[in-house]
Amino acid sequence: MKAGYLGPKATFTDIAVQNAFPDAERIGYTTIPDCFKAVINNEVDMAVVPFENALEGSVHLTTDYLFHETNPPIRAEIIVPIQQHLMVHPMQYNKWNEVERILSHPHALAQCHKFLHNQFRGVTLEQLTSTAAAAKYVSEHPESNIAAIANELAAEKYNLKIVKENIHDYDFNHTRFIVLAHSHTEILPSLTSTYEKTTIMVTLPSDRAGALHQVLSAFAWRRINLSKIESRPLKTGLGHYFFMIDINQSIEDQLVKNAIEEIESLGCHVKILGSYFSYHTQK
Amino acid sequence: MKAGYLGPKATFTDIAVQNAFPDAERIGYTTIPDCFKAVINNEVDMAVVPFENALEGSVHLTTDYLFHETNPPIRAEIIVPIQQHLMVHPMQYNKWNEVERILSHPHALAQCHKFLHNQFRGVTLEQLTSTAAAAKYVSEHPESNIAAIANELAAEKYNLKIVKENIHDYDFNHTRFIVLAHSHTEILPSLTSTYEKTTIMVTLPSDRAGALHQVLSAFAWRRINLSKIESRPLKTGLGHYFFMIDINQSIEDQLVKNAIEEIESLGCHVKILGSYFSYHTQK
Repeated sequence: MKAGYLGPKATFTDIAVQNAFPDAERIGYTTIPDCFKAVINNEVDMAVVPFENALEGSVHLTTDYLFHETNPPIRAEIIVPIQQHLMVHPMQYNKWNEVERILSHPHALAQCHKFLHNQFRGVTLEQLTSTAAAAKYVSEHPESNIAAIANELAAEKYNLKIVKENIHDYDFNHTRFIVLAHSHTEILPSLTSTYEKTTIMVTLPSDRAGALHQVLSAFAWRRINLSKIESRPLKTGLGHYFFMIDINQSIEDQLVKNAIEEIESLGCHVKILGSYFSYHTQK
Repeated sequence: MKAGYLGPKATFTDIAVQNAFPDAERIGYTTIPDCFKAVINNEVDMAVVPFENALEGSVHLTTDYLFHETNPPIRAEIIVPIQQHLMVHPMQYNKWNEVERILSHPHALAQCHKFLHNQFRGVTLEQLTSTAAAAKYVSEHPESNIAAIANELAAEKYNLKIVKENIHDYDFNHTRFIVLAHSHTEILPSLTSTYEKTTIMVTLPSDRAGALHQVLSAFAWRRINLSKIESRPLKTGLGHYFFMIDINQSIEDQLVKNAIEEIESLGCHVKILGSYFSYHTQK
């Protein structure tokens, strides 16, 4: 089993894959679209990408790509707790509190906003494509007095010294990853699932008053619980949106099927991203 | 009249202020929260900050700050078309197509995604706090073969050479800016308004099925049109959201007043951000 993921090695996505699919061969890709394409081209059996963070919200690139492109379905979600640490090159260990630049993923920098504001006000924050990329960069620049914010796995992998543990502002922070794979591929995470979900994307027929209300009515009177409703720009002009909706039931449920059928009859365009189980990891 | 805005000089926010308040004394601030605080501390009469872009969606820092902090009300919105250009230092003019790094605001980089992908694949993209900050940086590093993506005003202000005009992927792109000011301050933009809006933020009483549907029902049966509904994380855990709702009517309308009153009676917490006029600029 080959699992593509948003690399480099030791990203939180890598942690998600290691927890859910410990026996899979892991192949890191540079961008989220590259992960999607790897499944489409059958380079890998599945792709794991970040989808939503409890503090920062959705990963827009994933959401937009799922909406605008044709992709394999979502087959599982993996929810991972996020623990961020400040790390430096061992050569810089003695002067870590005088670092000139701090590198990380924009979400990680935001997650440590209070810590950075209190301890490193004025220090340049540099945004990289992942926390692991930041750790990698620091490991390759031993002469620079710089630090990375990343996870424990990254410190280990890139031989960095953790100088401040758990610098994230909130303890309950989690990231939700999704697993994309063709429907004929068997996906069996080494975790126990608690519940099933369905994710759909809905484009309303026009800007007519109450169109979203009609869509929600189709679910509400059937007592179908929605765990998430999010709007994203359609990219056709200010004020035009599509809606991503998470349904806390399987698409196989007759009531869910009927609700979606009726929404389509109302003139909405519905794209079903997948019906899948949700898995939680301990770390 | 003093207008605080997200600086440095020549950001799109600066353009918004110049168009709407040509006679105002403009004072640039480094961060969005600093703009808000400047109004609270009466350093300025109003603050202008970006709120939403047609392609990238909401500016989360503005949204989250409006939700989590106590601020003066929104008194106006200004909608500005976005035109991005690639610019370099005059000393680098001859080798601009060999630039090693391209700097800009993350939204601007995303807005020129196709152009960058086609013409500068592999070139390092560096995210700065604004398009103008990128132009400023390029102007201060004449020896570096780097480029900025920014607007015309920035090229002018920082004496850079535009080497590619209108590199943004979509033509209809606009950004929505909001004007915050104390309610006793008179706000008179030099533009003609087309309509009035009200923005509220709603926290649902619990994760009970259909709570959002109930909120939308209160508007739908009164035929009150909502131009936007967006969820953002409450920052209390994955799956907890608040909703930002734009109502296409004034809060003075009896039906709007009643709808909000009833939503509160349902156990929702409603924060009214403001009732204001919408203004469009030509460039």
